[in-house]
Amino acid sequence: MAEIPVGEYLFRRLKQMGIETAFGVPGDYELALLNHIEPAGVRWIGTPNELVGAYAADGYARLKGAAALVTTFGPGELSALCGIGGSFCEMVPVLHIVGYPSFAAQSSGRILHHTLGDKSYDHYVRISSELSCATTILKNPENAIAEIDRVLNGTVYFSLMLTSIGITEDVVKTMVPVSSLNAASIKMTLSAGLEDDPALSAIMVALESSKNPIVIVDGGAGRGSWAPHANDLIKALRSLHFNTIMGKGVVEEDGPLFAGCYAGVGSLPQTSRAVEKSDCILWLGHMPSDFNTGMFTDQVKSSTIIDFQRFQITVGNKQFQARMTTVLPRLAQAIKTSKVLGDRTLPEPVAPLLEQALDIPSSIITQDYLWPRLSSFVKPGDMVIAETGTSQVGAVATQIPKGAYYWTQAVWGSIGYAIGGAIGAAVAGKELGRYKRMIVLTGEGSLQLTAQAISILNRHGVVPYLFILNNKGYTVERYFEGWDAIYNDVPDWDYGGLFKSFSPEVSTTTFKVQTAAELDRILSDDDFQNATSPQQCIDMVLDKYDAPGGLKAIFDYKKKAASA
Amino acid sequence: MAEIPVGEYLFRRLKQMGIETAFGVPGDYELALLNHIEPAGVRWIGTPNELVGAYAADGYARLKGAAALVTTFGPGELSALCGIGGSFCEMVPVLHIVGYPSFAAQSSGRILHHTLGDKSYDHYVRISSELSCATTILKNPENAIAEIDRVLNGTVYFSLMLTSIGITEDVVKTMVPVSSLNAASIKMTLSAGLEDDPALSAIMVALESSKNPIVIVDGGAGRGSWAPHANDLIKALRSLHFNTIMGKGVVEEDGPLFAGCYAGVGSLPQTSRAVEKSDCILWLGHMPSDFNTGMFTDQVKSSTIIDFQRFQITVGNKQFQARMTTVLPRLAQAIKTSKVLGDRTLPEPVAPLLEQALDIPSSIITQDYLWPRLSSFVKPGDMVIAETGTSQVGAVATQIPKGAYYWTQAVWGSIGYAIGGAIGAAVAGKELGRYKRMIVLTGEGSLQLTAQAISILNRHGVVPYLFILNNKGYTVERYFEGWDAIYNDVPDWDYGGLFKSFSPEVSTTTFKVQTAAELDRILSDDDFQNATSPQQCIDMVLDKYDAPGGLKAIFDYKKKAASA
Repeated sequence: MAEIPVGEYLFRRLKQMGIETAFGVPGDYELALLNHIEPAGVRWIGTPNELVGAYAADGYARLKGAAALVTTFGPGELSALCGIGGSFCEMVPVLHIVGYPSFAAQSSGRILHHTLGDKSYDHYVRISSELSCATTILKNPENAIAEIDRVLNGTVYFSLMLTSIGITEDVVKTMVPVSSLNAASIKMTLSAGLEDDPALSAIMVALESSKNPIVIVDGGAGRGSWAPHANDLIKALRSLHFNTIMGKGVVEEDGPLFAGCYAGVGSLPQTSRAVEKSDCILWLGHMPSDFNTGMFTDQVKSSTIIDFQRFQITVGNKQFQARMTTVLPRLAQAIKTSKVLGDRTLPEPVAPLLEQALDIPSSIITQDYLWPRLSSFVKPGDMVIAETGTSQVGAVATQIPKGAYYWTQAVWGSIGYAIGGAIGAAVAGKELGRYKRMIVLTGEGSLQLTAQAISILNRHGVVPYLFILNNKGYTVERYFEGWDAIYNDVPDWDYGGLFKSFSPEVSTTTFKVQTAAELDRILSDDDFQNATSPQQCIDMVLDKYDAPGGLKAIFDYKKKAASA
Repeated sequence: MAEIPVGEYLFRRLKQMGIETAFGVPGDYELALLNHIEPAGVRWIGTPNELVGAYAADGYARLKGAAALVTTFGPGELSALCGIGGSFCEMVPVLHIVGYPSFAAQSSGRILHHTLGDKSYDHYVRISSELSCATTILKNPENAIAEIDRVLNGTVYFSLMLTSIGITEDVVKTMVPVSSLNAASIKMTLSAGLEDDPALSAIMVALESSKNPIVIVDGGAGRGSWAPHANDLIKALRSLHFNTIMGKGVVEEDGPLFAGCYAGVGSLPQTSRAVEKSDCILWLGHMPSDFNTGMFTDQVKSSTIIDFQRFQITVGNKQFQARMTTVLPRLAQAIKTSKVLGDRTLPEPVAPLLEQALDIPSSIITQDYLWPRLSSFVKPGDMVIAETGTSQVGAVATQIPKGAYYWTQAVWGSIGYAIGGAIGAAVAGKELGRYKRMIVLTGEGSLQLTAQAISILNRHGVVPYLFILNNKGYTVERYFEGWDAIYNDVPDWDYGGLFKSFSPEVSTTTFKVQTAAELDRILSDDDFQNATSPQQCIDMVLDKYDAPGGLKAIFDYKKKAASA
C-alpha cells in the first residue's frame, strides 16, 4: 500500500481545495513540516514576517476561496494573530498551520524555547480558538487524517472562517495511505438551506408588492462564491443597486443602474435619498458595522430590509434557515419568470460618483481631486486594494470598471494590511490567469507597519503601483482625536530610497508628487500605465488635515449631534 | 478636592514606578487615553508597529524595572502579542495598556470595527490572560483606581511578569481625587520570604562542606534588582563563577575568577570540566531551557545544585519558600564572617573565552574570527544586544567588560527582537544617565522581521552600531533542518540604502564588509569607535553554512547521539 507522510497529506488536501501556494515564515518546530510542501505540489512563499504572511494569506483566500499560512509554535503564531483575527472577522477562509514541538519533547518535562517556560503547551491553541471556527493539535498519528479532514470541513462549511491546525514534529513524519486522499471526505460545496423554499416565497411576495425595490451588495456574507449570483440578481431585477464600503468591488459599478456607495451621511446626497426612500431593500450580506454605515448614520427602516446572510435570510421580522448561495440563483430565475416583476419599467438613473473636477489644480493634491481622478487610471483586469482609513473612504469615489477586482478590510480595519494583502491577491490572480496590474492605495502611516512587504510585492513579477498618501501621520485619527497631537505624527521616510533597497535587483521607478498637475501628468503617461517594473508613486504629498468629503461629512454630523 | 482623570492617574502611577516613557502605536479607541500621557509627565514614543513597540517596552523594562506599552483594542493589541509573550516568558515587567471602546458603545448592540463582528468584547482579554500575571478591564469608574493599583501590585510582586490593562474610552475621562496618588498602595519592594532563615542555614551547611563550590549566574529569576547581590556573592565567596547564554551580562566577566559560559557540550572544554566537577553549584536563577543548556547537553548532578529562584530556593531535595532577593545579600555577609569560608584559598583560574586569532585572515569573516574580535571593540558603558540564533551563541565568545550591559532573549527566542529591544534599552539608558553606545548584533533574516525599528533607533540620539550577519538566510535553522532548502533563504536587501532611507534627515554611515581584514580596519578606526551618528556595519558577508563553534559542537553531538 503506497504511503505518504501526514505532512504531505495535509498539503495535498489543501491543493485539492485550490491552494497552490502557502505563505509563512520558517521556524525550527515547523521545518519538518515545510519539507512536505513541495512534494505535495504546493509552492512556498516566505514572507519577511508572520504578520505580512497572514495578510498575504488573507488576500489570496479572498480570490481563491482558501489559503494557508504556516508558522512556528509560539512567537511565530502569535505574530500572525492580528492578521488571523482579521480573516476571521471578515469571513476569509485561512488555514493557520503551526509547527509544534514533538510530543516526545512536550512530555519530557524540560523547558523548550518558544514556550512560556511553564512546560505547558496549550496556551497558544486556547488563544487561537478565540479566533477560529475549528482548531486541532495533531499529537496522535491514528486520528491525524480524521482531524485534518474535520477541520478542513469546518473551514469549507463556515466558508470562510479561520482554522488553526497545530502539527507536532513527530506526527508530520508518520506515514498514512495515499488512498486516504481519494476519500471524498472534504465537502467542497454547501448544501441548500432547510428553509430555502419558504424564504424564496416570502422574498417574492415582498418584491411583488414593492414600488421601488433596490439591491445593496454588502461585504458581510460569504466571499467569492456568491458574487456571480449577486450580479445575476441585479440584472434580473433591473432595479437600482448600491454597494457599501465593504461590499465595493463585488458587483460591477459601471452599469446604468449603479447608484453609488451607501454609507449614511457619508454618501452622496442622491445616493442616500434613493436608498432611504426604497420600500424593499434586498441587502446581500448586510454588515451594519460602524465604518460600513458612516458611523451608524444610516437611516433605513429595518422593516424594509430583506437581509441575506450566509446561513439565514430575514424577511421583515421572519428569519429563515436558508442559504444566500442557494437562494440567490433561484431568486434571479423566479424574478425573470414573474409576471409582476418581468414587466417593470427601469428606474431613473442616479449619479453614483463624485464628479471629476474639470480643471486640474496646479497646487497640492486634494482628496476631492485625487479619488475621481483615479477612475480613468483603473482598467478592467486590475486589482485594487484600499487601506483602512482615508484610502478606504476616498476610494468610494473611484470607479472600479467591470472586470477589475477591488477590496478593502472594512470591519477589522487593521492598518498595514493593504501591502500584505496585495501580495496574496497578486499571487492568486496569477494562478487564476487573470493578473494584470496591482494598484495599492495606502497612507504612509499605515505603510510603516508592514513596509517590508514591499520586498516580496516587488518580486514574483507583481509590478505593483503603490500610491502613498503622505500626509504627515494618521490623518483619519486626527478627525477622531488629537488634531495636532504628536502621537498622530509619523517620522518622514525616503520612500523612493526604501523601495529600491527592498529589492535592489529589481528596476523600480519612484515618483515624488507635489501637485495635482504632476499627478495628472504621471497618470496620463503611457509608460506609467503600461509599466513592466514596479511603479512606486510615492510622497504624494497631501495636506495633513485633508480628508475625503464623505469622512468630513460624517465627522461634521457627529459633531453637530454631540453639541445638539 | 483636586481631581484628575483616570487616564492621568494611571500614567502618574506608572511614573511613580519609574516609567518615564511609554511606547506604542495610536489607534482610535486609545486616543483619549494618549491625551493623558504628557500631563502625567510621561513621554510618548510612537513606534512604526506594535510588535516593535512591545520589543522596545521589553528592552526598557529590563533596565528600569517596568515599562508601558499602549495599543488599541483588537488589531493593535494582537499585533503586540509575540512581544508580550516574550516579556512574560522572560519575566520582564511590561504593562500592556489597551484602549477599549466605551462601555456605552459596547452595550449598544452594534458592530464596532476592530471586533470580530460578533458583538463580544472579551475575546482579547481572554487571549491576554494566557500571557499575563494580572488582567483587568476598567469599565466601572468606581473601582478603576483600586483595579489599577491591584494589577500594578501584581506586576511589582511577580516582579516581572506582564500585566494587561484594558481601559474604556469613557472611564479614561472620569475624574478621581489627586490624593489617591499619595496612598502608598503600590508596594515597590518585595518582603522577605517566610523561610529565608532555614534556607540560609541550609546553604551555609552545604557550602561549608563543599570542596569546590562555584556560582552560575543564570537569567531565570528576577531582573535588575538582584544583579548587585549576585556580584557581592561572587566577591564574598571568591570561587569560580560562570554564566549561561541567558545569564550573560548580569555579572562582570573580566575578573580573574570568571570561568566562561556554561552551555553543556556547547561550552569551552575547560569551562564544562570546571562546572561538572563542582560539588556545590550556587545556581542563581537557574533556567534549564534548551537554548540555555546546549540543547540539554548539560551534565550536572542535580544533587550538587543550590537552585535560587525568585520565590523559592532549593538545597538538595529540600525546597524553601525563600526569596533570592532577600537571601542573597545575607548570604554574602554570612560567607564573609564564616570561619570556614573566610579562609579559603582562591581556585586556579580557568580561561573563560575562545582565544582570539593572532593573524587576521584576508578572506571572508568566519564566526571563529568575528566574536573574539568584537571583545576589544566593546567598552565599559556600552549596551550590547545579541539576537536569538547564531548571534546569541556566538556572542558568548565576546568579552563584555565591567560596566557594559549585555542581554539576549534566550528562552522566548523570537527573531526580530534585537532592534526593537535596543530602542527601549537605549531610551532607558539615557533616562538613567548611563547611555554611551548601543551595539546590536543580528542576522539579516532576523532583521527583516522588524526592519522598520531602525526608523526609531536612528532617531532619539541613539547612534546605534548595527552589525548584520548577512549569510543568505536563517543559518541556525539550516543546522536543524533544510541545509539547502529554499525556505531557509531570504531575499537580498540593500541594507545601506534602506537604513539611510528610514531616517533621511540623520547622517548615517554604512559599510559593506567582505573580509576579516576590512572588518578589523573598521573596528580599529577611531572615527568609527567614537562616532556621533549611526554606524551601520552592514552586509558583513559570512558563509551561508558557518556557525559559532559552540553551535556546531552541539549539533555534532546530537547527530552522533541520534546515530548511536
